[in-house]
Amino acid sequence: MSTQLILEKQKQAVEILKEKDIDMWMTFVRETGNIKDPMMDMIVGTGATWHSAFIITKEGDTVAVIGSLEEANMKTVGTFQNIVPYLKSIKEDLIKVLDKYNPNKIAINYSRNSSLADGLTHGVYLELVDLLKNTPYAERFVSSEEIVSALRGRKSQVEVDLIKEAIRETLIIFDEVTDFIEVGKSEKDVANFVKSKVKERGFEMAWDEEHCPAVFTGPDTAGAHSGPTDKKIEKGHVINMDFGIKYNGYCSDLQRTWYVLKDGETEAPQEVLKGFNVIKNAIKMSSDAIKPGKQGWEIDNIARSYIVENGYDEYPHGLGHQVGRVAHDGGALLGPKWERYGNLPYMEIEKGNVFTIEPRLTIDGYGIATMEEIIWVTEDGCEYLSKPQTEIYLIDSPLAK
Amino acid sequence: MSTQLILEKQKQAVEILKEKDIDMWMTFVRETGNIKDPMMDMIVGTGATWHSAFIITKEGDTVAVIGSLEEANMKTVGTFQNIVPYLKSIKEDLIKVLDKYNPNKIAINYSRNSSLADGLTHGVYLELVDLLKNTPYAERFVSSEEIVSALRGRKSQVEVDLIKEAIRETLIIFDEVTDFIEVGKSEKDVANFVKSKVKERGFEMAWDEEHCPAVFTGPDTAGAHSGPTDKKIEKGHVINMDFGIKYNGYCSDLQRTWYVLKDGETEAPQEVLKGFNVIKNAIKMSSDAIKPGKQGWEIDNIARSYIVENGYDEYPHGLGHQVGRVAHDGGALLGPKWERYGNLPYMEIEKGNVFTIEPRLTIDGYGIATMEEIIWVTEDGCEYLSKPQTEIYLIDSPLAK
Repeated sequence: MSTQLILEKQKQAVEILKEKDIDMWMTFVRETGNIKDPMMDMIVGTGATWHSAFIITKEGDTVAVIGSLEEANMKTVGTFQNIVPYLKSIKEDLIKVLDKYNPNKIAINYSRNSSLADGLTHGVYLELVDLLKNTPYAERFVSSEEIVSALRGRKSQVEVDLIKEAIRETLIIFDEVTDFIEVGKSEKDVANFVKSKVKERGFEMAWDEEHCPAVFTGPDTAGAHSGPTDKKIEKGHVINMDFGIKYNGYCSDLQRTWYVLKDGETEAPQEVLKGFNVIKNAIKMSSDAIKPGKQGWEIDNIARSYIVENGYDEYPHGLGHQVGRVAHDGGALLGPKWERYGNLPYMEIEKGNVFTIEPRLTIDGYGIATMEEIIWVTEDGCEYLSKPQTEIYLIDSPLAK
Repeated sequence: MSTQLILEKQKQAVEILKEKDIDMWMTFVRETGNIKDPMMDMIVGTGATWHSAFIITKEGDTVAVIGSLEEANMKTVGTFQNIVPYLKSIKEDLIKVLDKYNPNKIAINYSRNSSLADGLTHGVYLELVDLLKNTPYAERFVSSEEIVSALRGRKSQVEVDLIKEAIRETLIIFDEVTDFIEVGKSEKDVANFVKSKVKERGFEMAWDEEHCPAVFTGPDTAGAHSGPTDKKIEKGHVINMDFGIKYNGYCSDLQRTWYVLKDGETEAPQEVLKGFNVIKNAIKMSSDAIKPGKQGWEIDNIARSYIVENGYDEYPHGLGHQVGRVAHDGGALLGPKWERYGNLPYMEIEKGNVFTIEPRLTIDGYGIATMEEIIWVTEDGCEYLSKPQTEIYLIDSPLAK
């Protein structure tokens, strides 16, 4: 992430601290090479080896209390105004900084609901509480959940432009996949083709390479979040692929559906078209309804109910998540009120949020239909960042090619 | 990491559970795409989106309680014998598994001392305690610190062979750097040359790209853990580079020192040779003393005292750390008794540990001399995995080339 973009996000963080009336936000870490607080990339821009505190105050000050060996690096990176290096223990210097600001509320990165606001490990939390034991500060900790959710969720124009770039490159690869798909090739063949394109163009995968891309052909496939198998593409299969890249630090995450024509067919059978159109309509209805102030479960419910009304099983996941520097970004989720999603489906959708919309249904005997589009929430609705799929992609038989 | 190596480490974990008399080890995670418990790679081999428990018991059972959408993927990965998929909440299934084993001691991944045993975030910890609130299990939690430290520290022959491979490739690049170094080139030029070699050969950097490699030329450089600058190489400079790669999942981490001859010189001046030899001797003395049962601070103290006795400042870091799947691996550290190192310098060195030895000193007016070698602890001593540097590398003046 560029220094300029980090400084922009820090400035935004200060506004959010004011809005939420929190005096200080402290990202407290160690050995980020082994486990890295997800906020480090966005507000610091480098790693830390020893216990380190990256502090942003409501007044707009930024202070990094870090191991002395990393002082020069921190200066080069240039994202923090004040650098306080220590040699043997962070304790004294950290307390000195806290004393200076005497904050009433200190947000730290722990959250039961959001993994992105939960970068503080339990051992480091215990250490931090112990370091501050004869001070009033450990009593003043609050979760940074609201800050992180707003900061990651409210995308600036620069961030949205980067996401658009990633989407553009991804859709080019989807088009190439349409040309590549052929009866007799396996899910793995398709995935390897995609991987070779990603590598060739210097992108990264948006998530775990084992199921990025995820490719499913025909009925009785492994289901979402699985890796591609040796299963071969056959005539009459519905195929879908879930795939995203990370490009210049920002991710895409998209899905498309294909149908492999049988001999003599010139279009997909009625039941396949019906399934595809139910997905298409569910996405349209959801995106029509989305706007600031709504809660995610309300949007999920529109798509979920419509799919069930049309005689399909409900999808076993949320309708959509935020996208940004990571594939699963932000706080608010377009998800059902299931315990595993915590409070995320209840959070209010905000202007600037970037969401996927990705319902799914099974067409018996053919495979799974699913599309995933990406939208950006505006003042009173949303705008598509991806060019939506409007027709199921047809794969001709080898003879017709 | 290959499935075979993961199964080997799981088996080793079972032995360690018996040795430490701990009934169960549970790695409890969520959204590892955003923040990943460092043990996931070694004992699971894939990621997890929803709350997931990866359990290894003293009896040798392995159980993964995971979101149902990830069941197929987990089966493909093939590292857990028993897979328990859930849809809406992990609670019921997790308690059922715990009831089955009724463990008295359950190790979970939190540690004040070791980042590698501290993969459980504070928010997920609170969630876990809450999930188990009407059961006796949350009262039975202990830190997995000892398990993780032993498991990561005791390297198998297969692991050591992989580290050796990474070292071999790294030393080839160091040799190429010797040919590349020239008066007028900058620290950044050298770093970029190294990066191009790493990319060309398909390796990864062993740590953060901003300071891997770290290159320092001449006096008054930025100090360890800093990135390379535009500072140019001059005649009479001592140059050092800190660099490692990750190759097939295992890391190297090495340092070497060069001297740029002035016009008419055929060898380095006396003060440079003295500095170099003090480092060389400090490494020799440390590696002579290392053996199972010693504590890390004792070894650090040998090198540290010797350097100070010879009139140099003590190095502002530990003498050496373990290396493995990450550059800073394992528990025990060859470090001084400074608060920032917690209990790590007091832990006993064990057979199978792989350590760096990397003292450093400043040669006034010339630069920093440092070497970093890698050793493997044996029954009663150690064996070098790197071919030690025995003479300072000399760079001829451009005319002589």
